[in-house]
Amino acid sequence: MTRSLPAAVCLVSGGMDSAVTLAEARAAGFEPYALSFRYGQRHAVELAAAQRVAAAAGVRDHRIVDLDLSALGGSSLTDDIDVPKGREFKGDGSGEIPSTYVPARNTVFLSVALGWAEVLGAADLFLGVNAVDYSGYPDCRPEFLEAFERLANLATAAATEGGTRFRVHAPLLQATKAEIVVRAKELGVDLGLTHTCYDPVLGTDPERALACGRCDACVLRLAGFAGAGESDPVAYATQEKP
Amino acid sequence: MTRSLPAAVCLVSGGMDSAVTLAEARAAGFEPYALSFRYGQRHAVELAAAQRVAAAAGVRDHRIVDLDLSALGGSSLTDDIDVPKGREFKGDGSGEIPSTYVPARNTVFLSVALGWAEVLGAADLFLGVNAVDYSGYPDCRPEFLEAFERLANLATAAATEGGTRFRVHAPLLQATKAEIVVRAKELGVDLGLTHTCYDPVLGTDPERALACGRCDACVLRLAGFAGAGESDPVAYATQEKP
Repeated sequence: MTRSLPAAVCLVSGGMDSAVTLAEARAAGFEPYALSFRYGQRHAVELAAAQRVAAAAGVRDHRIVDLDLSALGGSSLTDDIDVPKGREFKGDGSGEIPSTYVPARNTVFLSVALGWAEVLGAADLFLGVNAVDYSGYPDCRPEFLEAFERLANLATAAATEGGTRFRVHAPLLQATKAEIVVRAKELGVDLGLTHTCYDPVLGTDPERALACGRCDACVLRLAGFAGAGESDPVAYATQEKP
Repeated sequence: MTRSLPAAVCLVSGGMDSAVTLAEARAAGFEPYALSFRYGQRHAVELAAAQRVAAAAGVRDHRIVDLDLSALGGSSLTDDIDVPKGREFKGDGSGEIPSTYVPARNTVFLSVALGWAEVLGAADLFLGVNAVDYSGYPDCRPEFLEAFERLANLATAAATEGGTRFRVHAPLLQATKAEIVVRAKELGVDLGLTHTCYDPVLGTDPERALACGRCDACVLRLAGFAGAGESDPVAYATQEKP
């Protein structure tokens, strides 16, 4: 296989941040390869969105890795703990870590991305973390990403023998949700393909799940659209938009 | 649940190094929790050995996490590439990286171990890497382990909010295979329960697989027993012992 562009592995969750990040990777001159995880989520709707997003971006390959973190417990995204609703996000890092936190998730996902990058001969990893996520997730912070990059350059044969210099890209790191909505429009990303809600209302078709509009993720997403002066193309089960 | 000893997560592969490491964790005053992976290996015999080892060590819990790295390709342990035979191990870091290398494997495994440690409230991770492995696996080197420890203390809520200081223990890091055999005897570890071979000869009972005696892993293991003046209790398909 000949490549005209350098390959990059992009973590694609099905959410809007990773959808825009995937487009940023292409805009930065990379050939993106999408990587998603089936990690014991209690809804398959995220993966359906990830597949829509990857297909729309025309990625050369999209791999879904089975990783059953539910065996470890500890998160309401994989356990039977209730998803928190109506909780206030401070966005300044002072808030409590939400129960939707999956232990060491980004560390695990980036590690697998690193493995695939080595197989592909890629040196670049993209993930869609952004400043808002600092509010509760330690593995979304810049110092975490720097530490991972350092680790990657010690962990792999590609780096230690092949001279590859791995880089972790988080192009939305400093972006607000509103800026991400604006950027999606600029890059031609259809946010109607994405899924954000932690607690969707499932109908008969998992691809057509309605967002709850009330969980932390929905609240942040809706505020982003409002801030950008756009309306969210996905369907909500509630009319309580901000 | 009350605990008299601090919990530690120990990676248990079914091989002799991790079996001895598990015993070292207990000897160091920890309550060990065993973690293994079903990662697309083409033989289940490793996991059967891991279960024997964990049971014999009387661990409080043994989790097996499904992680299908075979989706990423790139290794003869998960792909259909031939396992190398009769290859010379230099042990000085100058050799080529063997094709049995699974991309970013220890990074991934440690990441999941970190996640489970956080759930358990444990701060200590044990893994059975040792100096011989430096010959080809970059993610067995001390600088890799230090970088991971640094990452762990940035990646987790336990560290950033809870004040946990994660430590990565590799008690066999400087040990030769012969020293590991001696240490197993001292700690009462039955190495007959372990499995090392990359290319076992499978019979009808996967628990009774014969080691090939010729792959890199077997050669190193047999040299270790020879160096310790002990005989290996596991069964081999070949009589070509050193």
